Amino acid sequence: MKKVSIIGATGYVGIELMRLLHQHSEVKIKDLISKSSAGQRLTDLYPQFRGSELNNYQLKAMEDFQAEASDLIFTALPHGVSQNIVGELSGKGAKIIDLSGDFRYHDLDIYEEWYGVKHKHPELAAEAAYGLVELNREQIKKADLVANPGCYVTASLLGILPMLSFSKADLSSIIIDAKSGVSGAGRSLKENLLFTETHNSMKAYSPAVHRHSSEIEYIANQFLKGEYDSDLKTFNPADISTGADRAQILFTPHLVPIKRGILATIYLNLKESSSEAEILELFQQAYNEEEFVQVLADQLPEIKNVAGSNFAQIGFKYDQRTARLIIVSVIDNMLKGAAGQAVQNMNLIFGYPENTGLKATALFP
Amino acid sequence: MKKVSIIGATGYVGIELMRLLHQHSEVKIKDLISKSSAGQRLTDLYPQFRGSELNNYQLKAMEDFQAEASDLIFTALPHGVSQNIVGELSGKGAKIIDLSGDFRYHDLDIYEEWYGVKHKHPELAAEAAYGLVELNREQIKKADLVANPGCYVTASLLGILPMLSFSKADLSSIIIDAKSGVSGAGRSLKENLLFTETHNSMKAYSPAVHRHSSEIEYIANQFLKGEYDSDLKTFNPADISTGADRAQILFTPHLVPIKRGILATIYLNLKESSSEAEILELFQQAYNEEEFVQVLADQLPEIKNVAGSNFAQIGFKYDQRTARLIIVSVIDNMLKGAAGQAVQNMNLIFGYPENTGLKATALFP
Amino acid sequence: MKKVSIIGATGYVGIELMRLLHQHSEVKIKDLISKSSAGQRLTDLYPQFRGSELNNYQLKAMEDFQAEASDLIFTALPHGVSQNIVGELSGKGAKIIDLSGDFRYHDLDIYEEWYGVKHKHPELAAEAAYGLVELNREQIKKADLVANPGCYVTASLLGILPMLSFSKADLSSIIIDAKSGVSGAGRSLKENLLFTETHNSMKAYSPAVHRHSSEIEYIANQFLKGEYDSDLKTFNPADISTGADRAQILFTPHLVPIKRGILATIYLNLKESSSEAEILELFQQAYNEEEFVQVLADQLPEIKNVAGSNFAQIGFKYDQRTARLIIVSVIDNMLKGAAGQAVQNMNLIFGYPENTGLKATALFP
Amino acid sequence: MKKVSIIGATGYVGIELMRLLHQHSEVKIKDLISKSSAGQRLTDLYPQFRGSELNNYQLKAMEDFQAEASDLIFTALPHGVSQNIVGELSGKGAKIIDLSGDFRYHDLDIYEEWYGVKHKHPELAAEAAYGLVELNREQIKKADLVANPGCYVTASLLGILPMLSFSKADLSSIIIDAKSGVSGAGRSLKENLLFTETHNSMKAYSPAVHRHSSEIEYIANQFLKGEYDSDLKTFNPADISTGADRAQILFTPHLVPIKRGILATIYLNLKESSSEAEILELFQQAYNEEEFVQVLADQLPEIKNVAGSNFAQIGFKYDQRTARLIIVSVIDNMLKGAAGQAVQNMNLIFGYPENTGLKATALFP
Repeated sequence: MKKVSIIGATGYVGIELMRLLHQHSEVKIKDLISKSSAGQRLTDLYPQFRGSELNNYQLKAMEDFQAEASDLIFTALPHGVSQNIVGELSGKGAKIIDLSGDFRYHDLDIYEEWYGVKHKHPELAAEAAYGLVELNREQIKKADLVANPGCYVTASLLGILPMLSFSKADLSSIIIDAKSGVSGAGRSLKENLLFTETHNSMKAYSPAVHRHSSEIEYIANQFLKGEYDSDLKTFNPADISTGADRAQILFTPHLVPIKRGILATIYLNLKESSSEAEILELFQQAYNEEEFVQVLADQLPEIKNVAGSNFAQIGFKYDQRTARLIIVSVIDNMLKGAAGQAVQNMNLIFGYPENTGLKATALFP
Repeated sequence: MKKVSIIGATGYVGIELMRLLHQHSEVKIKDLISKSSAGQRLTDLYPQFRGSELNNYQLKAMEDFQAEASDLIFTALPHGVSQNIVGELSGKGAKIIDLSGDFRYHDLDIYEEWYGVKHKHPELAAEAAYGLVELNREQIKKADLVANPGCYVTASLLGILPMLSFSKADLSSIIIDAKSGVSGAGRSLKENLLFTETHNSMKAYSPAVHRHSSEIEYIANQFLKGEYDSDLKTFNPADISTGADRAQILFTPHLVPIKRGILATIYLNLKESSSEAEILELFQQAYNEEEFVQVLADQLPEIKNVAGSNFAQIGFKYDQRTARLIIVSVIDNMLKGAAGQAVQNMNLIFGYPENTGLKATALFP
Repeated sequence: MKKVSIIGATGYVGIELMRLLHQHSEVKIKDLISKSSAGQRLTDLYPQFRGSELNNYQLKAMEDFQAEASDLIFTALPHGVSQNIVGELSGKGAKIIDLSGDFRYHDLDIYEEWYGVKHKHPELAAEAAYGLVELNREQIKKADLVANPGCYVTASLLGILPMLSFSKADLSSIIIDAKSGVSGAGRSLKENLLFTETHNSMKAYSPAVHRHSSEIEYIANQFLKGEYDSDLKTFNPADISTGADRAQILFTPHLVPIKRGILATIYLNLKESSSEAEILELFQQAYNEEEFVQVLADQLPEIKNVAGSNFAQIGFKYDQRTARLIIVSVIDNMLKGAAGQAVQNMNLIFGYPENTGLKATALFP
Repeated sequence: MKKVSIIGATGYVGIELMRLLHQHSEVKIKDLISKSSAGQRLTDLYPQFRGSELNNYQLKAMEDFQAEASDLIFTALPHGVSQNIVGELSGKGAKIIDLSGDFRYHDLDIYEEWYGVKHKHPELAAEAAYGLVELNREQIKKADLVANPGCYVTASLLGILPMLSFSKADLSSIIIDAKSGVSGAGRSLKENLLFTETHNSMKAYSPAVHRHSSEIEYIANQFLKGEYDSDLKTFNPADISTGADRAQILFTPHLVPIKRGILATIYLNLKESSSEAEILELFQQAYNEEEFVQVLADQLPEIKNVAGSNFAQIGFKYDQRTARLIIVSVIDNMLKGAAGQAVQNMNLIFGYPENTGLKATALFP
């Protein structure tokens, strides 16, 4: 049994990691670190763990944590904070999976522009492997530090990646209209996250300027440059759409009154006429051997069919009339969009079957 | 006091009309017609009217209805059914406001293609005035038959109309990603409308092929042809964007787990660089004298600020980087998107102040 | 037009008062006082008022407020705070309707025990009229200071009052299990009011020790002592249930994931056999002339039929088998449970028809 | 690997059984029987199973089902229908766990009175073991037919059982006010289960006359007669409360707009003064060795801490002032209230550890 720890254990991503890890057959939770709740019993904060082996866990402070005693550490912290902690933990023998935005960019100019933060560990950013498993499986296996992707980014990239190398696609035309449940905002005490402010309502926010916008576009273009040893079966640098050497992405997130789930509706112009059969084949080639990405041939995906699971589901519609492709991609933002994907990365690193501890299907109704 | 009647009184749009009309200071409800519930007491079906003057109303059957006794009739019926009823009622002296899709198109080829129904009253379709008040106020005032717009169409057109005559707009690039509450689907017994199937979930449906798609595009292009005596202050045929003599619209609706409200996120490419100030001025010119359309200069609209009211709120973001405009338009689908707009049309027809009976602000929280 | 002001204008109760008052035909809003937002424009905080005459209102600070310039002042403040402000305002000519718990008890020992606060204005508490209109209409009309009832208290008392003078009722057996929407908790930044913490969940809280418990029991017993000039037609001191000279009430509130609405399920043992007809008659006698309280003879009430309105609906079931009566009472906690009732009180004080500005039926769906 | 089948596989309880069973380490799903969907692929109806081994399952008709080929059969059918199917399946070697109300009563007079159905298999009803594990573990282990308890009944009995043998409890005073999520009503096409009719609303239904009322009272009294070989550590026939030889229960269910979860608030009079410590000890004695029932000493339970899990959580408050006990019990109605408990029963029958396949903690947020 490998020993794993979580730093930032009492945020929503932290407890979702706990939920997955305490029932994972191959690992054991070593330490749960929480700045705000050190010294408290986990079940006083989260009574849902009373019936589990975590019943008597006491949350620790960072200063009492020995990185060396863990085989792998998950850092579930705000960006900016995370790079410091990862800097401290690095080189002590434990693998690290970081769930913040701090290590997702090799090009730190982009990071610093969009995050408004100076990066203090460029050497770590340079070696971090981007943790979208379906894109970057081989690098992840060998990495000491994995940068787990953003939630919106995961839903968006899974929907758009197989189209990036499609010669008919106009990569300058990509628009992503994403809708997220409220858990994506974390457990922060903000007025606009109160039940009375969000229930029965809906809004767009940060159109064109959300940080995940830069991450989607950056990773898509890294992919086009051949930076990832992608398993995506469609990937063939020779096929890369010419004329648009760069993908340009306009991204608008929305907040909807559900707990979990992201639905990304992606719009893409085609430069030549295509067909649903042709598009379907591209998706199937990309994902046929991927357990966690399911391509729907004849229906559109719904949040309820993935919420509570690590699965992504993708459907699409080709509109002959406007020569546009509409792709719909859904995930559970807490799982494939955060903690589930992190465990999938851990499984890769430790050489376990990729689906270990991640087989649950959606909780419905 | 004018006398008004509702045919199709017990559907959701019917009861919303009732709610508005029984407290309208200038009209009196004459007859409430319901095929399914004729003979029943209204308050046995809808106990919320117990405290009102509708407490003793008994629902009538169509065969007991005398059109001549009403000054105005609202028809809140399914398309296809509605044209027959309107055909029967027509010419008996009562004005008619029809809330179905049957009389929204002067070009019946488009209607028949998208609705899959042969139109039996082309002469009535030809004379019907399209009932988007802000677009067509003068024609509505004189009309015997008003075709009340679709709910998605109202949210979409209010957001896009001021841009149609903007010379920098690429009218072939319009994408509308709309999100609606469940009341828009009416009171139909369908499995996918059950609480357990929609709560905490979300989905796209009918991408590119929803009927309202054709209505948005049709009306936008009629506007470009100068068919409406628009009050929109920006409207100047000489300004009409050249190069794109037609607007082409890709429309994707989504179902979200709220009761009321439509949020339409509209994407539009600009052919030349612009600025937020320039765009704001276009919106303000269009709507400054419109009571029911509010342009937000510095924030994005939310459903909660219009639900329960007849107001539309519109915000936008100009993204210099991608030269795209993102417009967000919100309405209450039951009010500005259906019954509220119908009452606004009625006020115009009868010469009452346009906001009579429609002054309520959003019910929040 | 009378001039009215609101102190505590930007809390949920404050804006609900605004919503009602700015459309009230007989009054005009004078000042809106907010400690936290003085100097800000109302519509920057609450954009739903953009289309109204409140569009240009600027929130004021308490120190800039002249009580003398208003005919009536609503105080929508936390208990403890409210008594100080009311103390300051008192005697300056304006009537006051206080929505806190501070002036609901003539017996200050009970207040101080349950609220944990020393009362600084016993003289005002002594003269304040309890503002449950159906119970105390005549005293309210003459009062300078009205104590608007608690939300749970209103739902509970309307359900139980007609039974208090029923000789078969065992007044020591009353149990009230109440369920409230989240708006009842106000706009406070508490973790347990976040969307993610309340949506799709439910809980009981403060069983037996909620402050409204004491208010329900106190007012019920004041009623039994003949303290109110009740219009309740059943009321006849000679009928008062003997054997139980006091009502004893066990009250448990619950938080449910809806925005507005309280549903109180009330359990009461009968000492002798009764019948549904007998019980119905008692309710009808009590409320037949009350516009805002509707007795349902043959169905149980639901939140959706009152939310958005000032109406209460009451239904019941007599269970012969266990000799128990189950009464279900529903209100909108923001309206009949707070702001609506306050306006009803204002109408009484000014001599307007009681339903002025309060005729809206429930907003459904 | 034991082979198990589900009859009634496409109702909500059926698919919840599937979700649990297809990941159970010791059993394999053999046949999935659905009257309405025979011949269809499971994943066309429920796309959430695409990523699982059930991906290619085809639903079967009853006439193609061989009971002998399964070691155990779950029947998830409406009452009345279920007894016929169980009658057919019985004696063919497969154990049966029935999730309807048909085999929960040994006294068929009560069944027939409350269900309005004549029982056709009294011999099976007589031998069926009542499947509340914590109450009847030993009988279940040996049973050929287990009657899985009702959802409300499970929440209620777990809350009240430890009090039944408490000499200070007045067993004639029990009132249970229960609140359930909408999934409890199943996937039936009823108007009052539409999203628009239930969201943001709430109601009581069937007060005093719900079928689960009779089941709670019947099982409680069977327990008092010593019919179950209870593991409840408090159980001692000599202790049984005298004076009240029978428990009498008044039960009122409510529908609340959540998907999963039942919260039962239980009221019980005490005949003598007690203390929170004394009550806590009774609960702890009863459940200390029970994995799936957690007693909270210092807080009240919430739905969110059990939804998605097979755990029950129980909290309480003793109110000295009114000498009443308030017990709050929460479960996930689909799991501990139906499918989870059925799997727990299956584990007992097959001799597997009771928690096999049931270790998941609540899905939160």
